[in-house]
Amino acid sequence: MPRTVAVYFLPAETSAQDFAGRAAIVVDLLRASTTIATALAAGARDVIPAESPERAMELRNGIGRASTLLCGERKGEMIPGFDLGNSPRDYTPAVVGEKHLIFASSNGSAAILAASDAERLCVGALVNAGPVIRWVEAGTDDCVILCSGKLGQFAAEDAACAGHFVLALQERGFALANDGARTAALLASSIRGRWRDFVGATDHGAYLSQLGFAADFPVVCAVDSLEALPVWHENRLIRAVATAKG
Amino acid sequence: MPRTVAVYFLPAETSAQDFAGRAAIVVDLLRASTTIATALAAGARDVIPAESPERAMELRNGIGRASTLLCGERKGEMIPGFDLGNSPRDYTPAVVGEKHLIFASSNGSAAILAASDAERLCVGALVNAGPVIRWVEAGTDDCVILCSGKLGQFAAEDAACAGHFVLALQERGFALANDGARTAALLASSIRGRWRDFVGATDHGAYLSQLGFAADFPVVCAVDSLEALPVWHENRLIRAVATAKG
Repeated sequence: MPRTVAVYFLPAETSAQDFAGRAAIVVDLLRASTTIATALAAGARDVIPAESPERAMELRNGIGRASTLLCGERKGEMIPGFDLGNSPRDYTPAVVGEKHLIFASSNGSAAILAASDAERLCVGALVNAGPVIRWVEAGTDDCVILCSGKLGQFAAEDAACAGHFVLALQERGFALANDGARTAALLASSIRGRWRDFVGATDHGAYLSQLGFAADFPVVCAVDSLEALPVWHENRLIRAVATAKG
Repeated sequence: MPRTVAVYFLPAETSAQDFAGRAAIVVDLLRASTTIATALAAGARDVIPAESPERAMELRNGIGRASTLLCGERKGEMIPGFDLGNSPRDYTPAVVGEKHLIFASSNGSAAILAASDAERLCVGALVNAGPVIRWVEAGTDDCVILCSGKLGQFAAEDAACAGHFVLALQERGFALANDGARTAALLASSIRGRWRDFVGATDHGAYLSQLGFAADFPVVCAVDSLEALPVWHENRLIRAVATAKG
């Protein structure tokens, strides 16, 4: 039997059993996945997802203010009292190096927590697609990709990024396990490398453009630009040691 | 401003405000939409959706056993004590003519009730695509298409049928309002008329094949084979009088 890859477009489609024993990839392309990968590449010590701004404050009080940054957004914009929003361009080595990042994004943080019963979990975006695929391939388990969506609704950019992973895994012999995987693959195939045009035309891309974040799109769409792979370890995301392959 | 069409892949994505003031099409291609259209074409008096088998029994007791049929499924199969399952082939004039049908399907009935705050509501399938599109076009409101999905998960056959409607409305000048509409249109475009192959290869199609219902697929995929349009009127679906156009 070939290994399989399934895709769910929304956390609400899933329950813990969909993740048990599997390798989970969580996708929130605009922008948490991209930003978390960027932060770890820039030297952040770890990223701790928080389901709400209030919970983020609590977590910071537990860790200590000096070594932490409060990060995230509501409706795309920085949360009052926080240190950073959700634009990957703000996560530079000078700002995030050696810091613990407490991350309260509207969709990505909830999706990460929803998938945390997986055998193993990583956060995937276009920027780190290469390490994501090598990480999946290095195991023997089936793969499940969870799209974060946007406030409980389907987000095409997450589905398309999931489809990018599906196509890569299909090339490596994985079978497509569900309607979500087949539809995501179709969507990714339709893009033919024109990620910036595609992302800018999605509902959430158009919204972020209105807020003045269009300059994030070239960063988000820089496929394979980072080697950083955020993996789940003791209730936080840390940068995985590079998996040897190829 | 052009009129718009939005698509939601799951009832959980929506709230009442997504339907208010709009023309809603509810899609459960395998098989409630198809079966309800078939039933009204075969002379059923009306179709009353019930959220559960228990609620269906209550409704029957209110209307009277002689003039009603209990219809629907759980896990694709007829419910014990019910009169009919969810195969459109069973809804013949001899069986359903002049009857009130109380309809408890797992996904379609819930989706119809979820969309019932719409300004107007119809049930759409491939078999009655023509009347559905004429019905939308005859108004001045925006259109929202709700896919039923399968037990809370994305169902590609519903998305593709929604996309078939989106493409038809786009030809008539409607703008695509959300990621769901654009993705559904892409999916429908990819099928190029090979509906039977597509439907049989979906998760739910494969499941129904296992149950022995593959003979339903030619009925389900007979595009524009029926003139019957089920429309919502006083908490039930009745057959609309044909809208004059074209």
